[in-house]
Amino acid sequence: MTASAAYARRSKTVLPDTASLPSLALIAGSGRLPQLLAQAARAQGRRISVFVFDPLLAEAFSGFDTHVLNFAQVGVLMDLMKKLAIGELVMAGKIHRPDFSKLRPDATGMLMLPAILAAAARGDDALISAVVKIFESRGIKIIPPEMIMQELVPVSAQWTVRAPSAVDLIDIEKGFQVARALGALDIGQGVVVADGLVLAAEAAEGTDAMLMRVAQLPDAIRGAQSRRRGVLVKCAKPTQERRVDLPAIGPDTVAHADKAGLSGIAVEAGGSLIIDRDAVIAAADRFGLFVISTGGA
Amino acid sequence: MTASAAYARRSKTVLPDTASLPSLALIAGSGRLPQLLAQAARAQGRRISVFVFDPLLAEAFSGFDTHVLNFAQVGVLMDLMKKLAIGELVMAGKIHRPDFSKLRPDATGMLMLPAILAAAARGDDALISAVVKIFESRGIKIIPPEMIMQELVPVSAQWTVRAPSAVDLIDIEKGFQVARALGALDIGQGVVVADGLVLAAEAAEGTDAMLMRVAQLPDAIRGAQSRRRGVLVKCAKPTQERRVDLPAIGPDTVAHADKAGLSGIAVEAGGSLIIDRDAVIAAADRFGLFVISTGGA
Repeated sequence: MTASAAYARRSKTVLPDTASLPSLALIAGSGRLPQLLAQAARAQGRRISVFVFDPLLAEAFSGFDTHVLNFAQVGVLMDLMKKLAIGELVMAGKIHRPDFSKLRPDATGMLMLPAILAAAARGDDALISAVVKIFESRGIKIIPPEMIMQELVPVSAQWTVRAPSAVDLIDIEKGFQVARALGALDIGQGVVVADGLVLAAEAAEGTDAMLMRVAQLPDAIRGAQSRRRGVLVKCAKPTQERRVDLPAIGPDTVAHADKAGLSGIAVEAGGSLIIDRDAVIAAADRFGLFVISTGGA
Repeated sequence: MTASAAYARRSKTVLPDTASLPSLALIAGSGRLPQLLAQAARAQGRRISVFVFDPLLAEAFSGFDTHVLNFAQVGVLMDLMKKLAIGELVMAGKIHRPDFSKLRPDATGMLMLPAILAAAARGDDALISAVVKIFESRGIKIIPPEMIMQELVPVSAQWTVRAPSAVDLIDIEKGFQVARALGALDIGQGVVVADGLVLAAEAAEGTDAMLMRVAQLPDAIRGAQSRRRGVLVKCAKPTQERRVDLPAIGPDTVAHADKAGLSGIAVEAGGSLIIDRDAVIAAADRFGLFVISTGGA
């Protein structure tokens, strides 16, 4: 029995008692995760308000209490959160750094800008930590997405019909070693390894773009759909804020891994998010890829 | 006076006495460096034979004693080098790994294949070392490109009119730190950093492809030709075979850095190659980029 069958049997868990929970804010970036979280929170009976920085993202949350924010209007945001009695905050989805030189901060934002700029210059981890501290100093608790959807973070498991080969397992081990090193330097959370060679290392471009360029590498060093080689490995940065920005895969990741000719995907058990897991498993089984979660808690 | 002026004054160096030197083999990959080396060696009066693995590359060496090789015909290659009395070998240009599963080795190649495959699975550094050992065990001395063209490897210098800004210098420092870490893991030799954020890390795709994807990143995190931000940093891997595969930049690198909106390029003094330096400096000055070599011997 694959883990997916076991998962299906276990997935009817008891819902948490949410009546006593404070109002929840969702700061939503792009991708499918924020919508899944908003729906799950509402299904659990929670009061939820959604905040987006990109007006185009607001459409995905029709029916929710949705607010379009300007990065630098920190005072406005804090006043609004106070008015809405926000007690907990979850951040999810891809949010790109703003161009700090173009921000027009309000008075509160102006006070915070020097600390934010100094943090940004040290990298994404420092920037995220600085943002988290701003909310915490106002009494807003940051919760991770899996506090709302526990099944997002996988246990150790083989989710697909296909299993990694002996060669894949060696590539996976190297992939974790390299991804942890990239993470320690706050470069990125993903890497593609094939037959011992690091084909691609992820930085600001994101996983999908990285997989697309693997498909453009010379035939000799990569796999193809007809002869799969190589693995995508994603794991958390050793020092990252684990409540925000855990590495994630979803159905699109599987589709890009397929086009890149990979054998499969390995993510960190306990340290990554599998978004829309049923769809991920179905897509991987259809393409003949493996998906495993391993090496974590 | 910029370093380029000093360089121009110094460049009429005395040619080495080459009459007593053994016959030279050049294993040539793609790019302009192999042609420059072949011409320089001939101008110095050396007997030179050129070996290419890709028949399309042979055209660039018309007028030279040129041989098209099959990676796996090691016995044929060694016999040929013996016949030509090859005593020294220089390897230059980009050579991609072959698809080892498709090689049809001769008897000598068959004997060496297990060691080569084992090395390849440990990464490019191990593979290059294994190849170097094969030649050395036959009494062929591997020489670095700068043994033929000393000016390829830069001393510490600012080569351009433009100098790095204070922000650029911080990005350069981070870039060297990250590039050395990538190199220690045998991932790659190049990185792009802008305002503290690692925009791209180079693996198998090469520097030009990396710079092209920087141009595709969201506007907010990168520069533009009208408002330059960020640096390309290249340095040698800490443990690499320094006679083969030092990181290189050339006029094309400058053109791609320009399109990526970068402020400039920093390479390791004493640990990198600047190919066609006059053209590199001219292009950088035309675009308004800086090029510096720093942090090395």
